[in-house]
Amino acid sequence: MAPLRESSGDPVLPDPPQGPLHVARARASFPWKELALFWEGEDTLRFKKAIFSALENDPLFAHPRGSRLSVEKYQELNFLRCKRVFEYDFLPVGDMLDSLPRVLALIECLGMYDWSLAVKFFLHVLTFGSAIYSSGSERHLKYLPKIFSLEIFGCFALTEVSHGSNTKGIRTTAHYDPSTQEFIIHSPDFEAAKFWVGNMGKTATHAVVFAQLYTPGGQCHGLHPFLVQIRDPKTLLPMPGVMVGDIGKKLGQNGLDNGFAMFHKVRIPRQDLLNRSGDVTPEGAYVTHVKDVGQRFSESLGSLSSGRVAIVGMSVVNLKLAVSIALRFSATRRQFGPTDKEEVPVLQYPMQQWRLLPYLAAAYALDHFFKSLFLDLGELQQGLLGKDRSVRQAELGREIHALSSAGKPLASWTAQRGIQECREACGGHGYLAMNRLGDLRDDNDPNCTYEGDNSVLLQQTSRYLLGLLARRGPGGARIESPLKTVDFLDGYADILGRRFEGSSPEDLLDSSVPLAAYEWLVCYLLRESHQKLSREKRSGKSDFEAINDCQVYHCRPLALAFLELTVVRRFHEHTHQPRVPPPLRAVLRRLSALYALWSLSQHTALLYRGGYFSGERAGKVLESAILALCAQLKDDAVALVDVIAPPDFILDSPIGRADGECYGLRSTPGAV
Amino acid sequence: MAPLRESSGDPVLPDPPQGPLHVARARASFPWKELALFWEGEDTLRFKKAIFSALENDPLFAHPRGSRLSVEKYQELNFLRCKRVFEYDFLPVGDMLDSLPRVLALIECLGMYDWSLAVKFFLHVLTFGSAIYSSGSERHLKYLPKIFSLEIFGCFALTEVSHGSNTKGIRTTAHYDPSTQEFIIHSPDFEAAKFWVGNMGKTATHAVVFAQLYTPGGQCHGLHPFLVQIRDPKTLLPMPGVMVGDIGKKLGQNGLDNGFAMFHKVRIPRQDLLNRSGDVTPEGAYVTHVKDVGQRFSESLGSLSSGRVAIVGMSVVNLKLAVSIALRFSATRRQFGPTDKEEVPVLQYPMQQWRLLPYLAAAYALDHFFKSLFLDLGELQQGLLGKDRSVRQAELGREIHALSSAGKPLASWTAQRGIQECREACGGHGYLAMNRLGDLRDDNDPNCTYEGDNSVLLQQTSRYLLGLLARRGPGGARIESPLKTVDFLDGYADILGRRFEGSSPEDLLDSSVPLAAYEWLVCYLLRESHQKLSREKRSGKSDFEAINDCQVYHCRPLALAFLELTVVRRFHEHTHQPRVPPPLRAVLRRLSALYALWSLSQHTALLYRGGYFSGERAGKVLESAILALCAQLKDDAVALVDVIAPPDFILDSPIGRADGECYGLRSTPGAV
Repeated sequence: MAPLRESSGDPVLPDPPQGPLHVARARASFPWKELALFWEGEDTLRFKKAIFSALENDPLFAHPRGSRLSVEKYQELNFLRCKRVFEYDFLPVGDMLDSLPRVLALIECLGMYDWSLAVKFFLHVLTFGSAIYSSGSERHLKYLPKIFSLEIFGCFALTEVSHGSNTKGIRTTAHYDPSTQEFIIHSPDFEAAKFWVGNMGKTATHAVVFAQLYTPGGQCHGLHPFLVQIRDPKTLLPMPGVMVGDIGKKLGQNGLDNGFAMFHKVRIPRQDLLNRSGDVTPEGAYVTHVKDVGQRFSESLGSLSSGRVAIVGMSVVNLKLAVSIALRFSATRRQFGPTDKEEVPVLQYPMQQWRLLPYLAAAYALDHFFKSLFLDLGELQQGLLGKDRSVRQAELGREIHALSSAGKPLASWTAQRGIQECREACGGHGYLAMNRLGDLRDDNDPNCTYEGDNSVLLQQTSRYLLGLLARRGPGGARIESPLKTVDFLDGYADILGRRFEGSSPEDLLDSSVPLAAYEWLVCYLLRESHQKLSREKRSGKSDFEAINDCQVYHCRPLALAFLELTVVRRFHEHTHQPRVPPPLRAVLRRLSALYALWSLSQHTALLYRGGYFSGERAGKVLESAILALCAQLKDDAVALVDVIAPPDFILDSPIGRADGECYGLRSTPGAV
Repeated sequence: MAPLRESSGDPVLPDPPQGPLHVARARASFPWKELALFWEGEDTLRFKKAIFSALENDPLFAHPRGSRLSVEKYQELNFLRCKRVFEYDFLPVGDMLDSLPRVLALIECLGMYDWSLAVKFFLHVLTFGSAIYSSGSERHLKYLPKIFSLEIFGCFALTEVSHGSNTKGIRTTAHYDPSTQEFIIHSPDFEAAKFWVGNMGKTATHAVVFAQLYTPGGQCHGLHPFLVQIRDPKTLLPMPGVMVGDIGKKLGQNGLDNGFAMFHKVRIPRQDLLNRSGDVTPEGAYVTHVKDVGQRFSESLGSLSSGRVAIVGMSVVNLKLAVSIALRFSATRRQFGPTDKEEVPVLQYPMQQWRLLPYLAAAYALDHFFKSLFLDLGELQQGLLGKDRSVRQAELGREIHALSSAGKPLASWTAQRGIQECREACGGHGYLAMNRLGDLRDDNDPNCTYEGDNSVLLQQTSRYLLGLLARRGPGGARIESPLKTVDFLDGYADILGRRFEGSSPEDLLDSSVPLAAYEWLVCYLLRESHQKLSREKRSGKSDFEAINDCQVYHCRPLALAFLELTVVRRFHEHTHQPRVPPPLRAVLRRLSALYALWSLSQHTALLYRGGYFSGERAGKVLESAILALCAQLKDDAVALVDVIAPPDFILDSPIGRADGECYGLRSTPGAV
C-alpha cells in the first residue's frame, strides 16, 4: 500500500478509528484498502480526500445542514457554500472533459456532503453552462467566462405548471418582432408558468427558457431555447415583465431554491436565441442547418440522457450513505440473544442480513453500472462535439437513451426502497432526524419523478427493445449495439428454449447462473410484450391505446428486467476479470451473485410461469442461495462499508460513526 | 337520504362543490352518500361532522401545521390545540367505554387533522390514563380527575436508549427503602435513559415509569410501573434528580414532544407503585394477587394489543388521505393523449389505475379490518375489567395478540408504500410540501417501528400459528378460536390438496377465488415453516438459532399471508352480506376482489412453486383480472374518495380539493 502514502505522511486511506466496530472489522475476509484502490483508483482516492478535507476544514461547511435548518437559512447558507466551491476550483474548467473520473468524484463528494449544494453547483455549471455551450453558437461564447466567474448565475427553465413529461405541451411563446429585432417571451397563463426550476427561486440572474418560436405571420417552429435575463445581478430584483419567485418548501433538497417564472411580453435581443438547431434572420425568416431529423433526434437524446445518468449516480450515492449508516449501526447494536444475559449484534440475525446486505450489494453493482454508463455517455458527447454523424454514433445515442431511461428508475427506486429499509432496520434511531436517513430519503425522493417520471420513462426502454425485435423480423439483420447490451437477443429463440438446471444452492453461488436466467427472462418478456401489443392492435385499438394497455405487466417489467440484466452483466464481468487482485475475488463475486439472485428473485413468478423454473426445488435453492450469500458476507459488511463510506464529518450520522460509538458515547461494557 | 338532513337544514353530507371533478363524479356507478351511510352509520357521520366543523371554525386550528412550522412553534401550537380539544369535550369520559365507534371516530378525525395532535391527546388520556386505571388500584383513582382537568399531564415511559423491543432488557431500577417507605427510581447509565417517550419532551408533569422492582435484600421482582412526578406543574421545571428533555427532531410527528429522562435516585412514595399485578408491604415484602401466570400473560398481551390496534387505525387514516389526494389529482391532471391536441386525465391510463386503485381498495379493506379488530379488542378489554378468567378470554387475548402483531406491520407497510406511490403518481406536485403527501409519509413512518419493529412483531403471529399446529398433532383437538380466524386450519390437509381452477379472468372477479387461494397459501407456508423449523432443530441448532433461521422465507411470509387472508375474509364477508344496499353491491365486491387479487399476486411465485397454480394461464388470468377490476373501478374512484375523504380544510392539500381546482386556480379551458 506504499503508493497510497502522501509524502507528508498523511495517508490517503487512514486506518479507521478504534472502537466497538474494531471486532467486526477484524473478521473481514479481505483487505479493505486494497478494494478501495481497486474500486476507485489512486488518483480518484487522492482527489476525493482533497475535497473532503477542504470541506471539513472550512467553517462555512460546519454543521448543521439539511432539514435541521429553516428553509430560508438553509438556502442562504447553501448559496454561500456553492460560491465557496467555485473558489476552491477543485476541477478547473479545462480539465472537466479530460478527466471524467474526476467529474464523477466531484459530483459524488459534493452530493455526499449535501445534494442541495451539489445540484445547485452543477445546475449552474453543467446544465445552464452546457445548454449555452451546446445549444448556442459562437455569439454566445461571451457568456461562458461570466458563468465561471459567477458574474451571472443560471438556471434551465423547461417544465411548466401543467406540463413536465410531455414537452410538446409547453406553452410559453417567443414571437419574433422584426421591427426591433427582438423576441417577445410570454406566458399565456398560470399553467404555462415555468415551474420547479432549480436556482430560479432566489439566486439565478439568467435562465435558458424553452418557448415555442413564432415567426411573423404566425408560423410556429416548435420548442427552442432562449437566454433570458430574469434578475438584476446587483440587486437580485426581477427584471421588468418577469414575475419570479420560490415555489415553496419541498419534501427534500430544500437548500436548493426551486422557482417559478411568468413572462409578460419580455423583450430579448434576437441574438439571445440559442441557435444551434434553428435561427431567425433579422428580417424574420426561420432557417435551420439541421437537415437530418435523425441526427437532431439523436442529439436531443444525448442531452436528455445526461440528466438521467446523473440521477443514477445521485441515487447510488444516497444508497451508499444509507447502507453505511445502517450496517455500522447493525454491527454494534445488540438486542436479544440466546440467553437473557447475552445479547448479540442485530447483524447476526439472518433477517437483518437479508434486509440490508442485498442493498449493500446493490450499491456496489449500481455504482459500477453508473461509472461505466458515465464513460459511455462521455463517448457519446465526444461524438456530438466532433459532429460524428455515423450510424454507430446514432445507435450509441439510442442505446444510451434506453439504458438511462430505465437506469434512472431502477437506481432511484432501489435507493428509495433501500433507504427506507435502512431507516426501519435502525428502529427508532433511524427515525431521529440527526441520523440523516430521513434527509437521505427526502433528498433522493425527487429522483423518482424529475427528468421524466420513472413509470413513463420505462416506456422509452421497452420501445427500444420492441423496435429491435421488429427490425430483426424473420431472417432479418443481426441484433447488435455499440455497447453490446442487446447482442444476446440475437439468440432469442434458443434462449427461450433454455431451462434452469441448478439443483443445489451451491450451483447458484456464482452470478453466471442468474445471468443466464435473466437472459431468458428478458427474451420471455420481450416475446410476451410483442405478442400482447400485436393482439391489442389487431383488436382494433389505436396505437396510443394499444401501447398503454401493454404497460403494467408487459413493457414495464420488460424494461426493468433488461436493465437489471445489464447491471448484473457489467458487475459480473467486472468482478470476474483477470485483473481483480486475488484477495478480493471471493468477496466481489459474492456481492455480484447476491445482487443478481436477489434482483432475480423478484421475478420468480415469471420464471415458473414461463417454464424456466419447474418443481419446488428451483424456488427453494434460489432462496437458500440468497441466505447463504448473506451469511457469507455478514462478516465482510463493515469492511465493505469502509470502502464506500465518506469520512464521519461528511457522513454526518451519529449512529454511523466509523468507530462504532453510537452518538459518540462510550458504551457500557454491560450492554455492548 | 332524509334522515341525513339536520333540522337546521345543514346537511350531514353536503354535495361536493362544483368544479372540474364534477364530470368524473357524474360517471360513478353508485350513490356515494348511500355508501357513506352504510360505511360509517349515521351517528358517526354526525359526530365526525361536528368535530370537523369545530376545528374548522376555531382560529387556533387555522393553518399552517406540520412540517411547514419550526419544531418549537409546532410543539407550542400543538399543546394549545391539545388543551382546546379537551375543552371541546367531544366525548365525555363516561361515554368512552360505551361508544367505541365514537372513540374510533374521534381518533380518526383528530388524526386526519394532524397525528401530532391526536397522539398527544391519546397518549395522555388513553395510554397514561388507562395505565393508571388498569395497572393501579383504588389508591390511584384520585389521579383520574386531575388527568381530565389537565391538572397533571402524563406520559408512558417504557423504552430506553438501548432497549425497545426487548423489554426484558430494561435497566431502570426501583429499590424499596422501608425506612422511609419510598421507592428509589434510578437510571444506572445513559443507555438506561428513558427515550422516545411522547409528551415527555416538554409538557408532561408525570410519567408512568417502568423499572425493575427490588425489595430489601436485593431480590428483583421484574418490571413494574411506577407513577413518577417529573416536572413542577406550575413552572414545568424538572423535579430534583430528574434530568428530562426533548430528544430533538424526528422524521415526522414533530408537533409531539418526544423526550428522554434519567433519574438520579429519585424518591417516590410507596403508594405510587401501580400495584395491580404486584405490591410491596410497608415492611418491604413483595406480594402478588396474580397466581395464574397465564392470566397475567393474557392481560399484558391485551394492553400491548391496544397500541398495535391503534397503529393499524393510524395507518389506515394516512392511506385514506393519500389516495384521496392522488386520485382527485389524477382525475383532473391531463398529460399526453391520442393526438397532440387532446390530453386525457392521467387516471385514464391503465398504469396510473394500477398504481393507485389497489391502494384505494386497500384503504377500504383495512379500514373495515381495523374497525372490526377494534370491536374485538373492546370485547377483550371488557373481559379484563370484568375479571373474566375463562379459557375463552385467554384464547381471545392470544388471538387478538396474533392479529394485532401482524396487523400493525401489514397496515403500516401498506400505508408506507401506498403514500410513496401516491406521492410519485402526483409527479412534481406530490413533491411540493404544501400538498401534504410528504407529511403523511413522515407521520406514518414511526408506525413501522414503534410498539415493536414490524419484522420482529411478525414472529408473534407465526409463533401463534405454529403453536396451533403443534397442539393439534395427529388426531388432536380441533383448531378453533373465539374470532374464528384460524378455524379453517382444521381442514389443513384437505386444503393443501386444493388446486386453482379458474381459467378466465371472469372467474376471478369475486373475492371468493383469492380467498380460497389464500387458505391454501397459509396452509402451505405453515407446513413449510413447521418442516423447516423441525429440520433446523434436528440438525442440532438451539431453539434461538433455529427460529431465527426460519424467519426470512418462512415465518415472515406466513404471518403476513395469514393476516392478508383475515383482512380479505372480513372484507369479503362484509361486502357479501345481505344487508348491503343493492346499489352498492357491485362496487363493494369489486373493491373486495381487487384488494384480494392484488395482495395475492405478491405470492404468485409460491402459488406456482407449491403446485396450486400450474401452466402459464393461471398467472395470466390473475393479472388480467386485476387490470379488469381497475378498469371497472376507475369511474367510481372519485366517488369512492368522497366517502372517505375529510373536508378540504382537514385534508389540507391544494391538489386534493373536492372541487378539483388544483391550487384553487380556475383552470384554463385550453389545458383542462
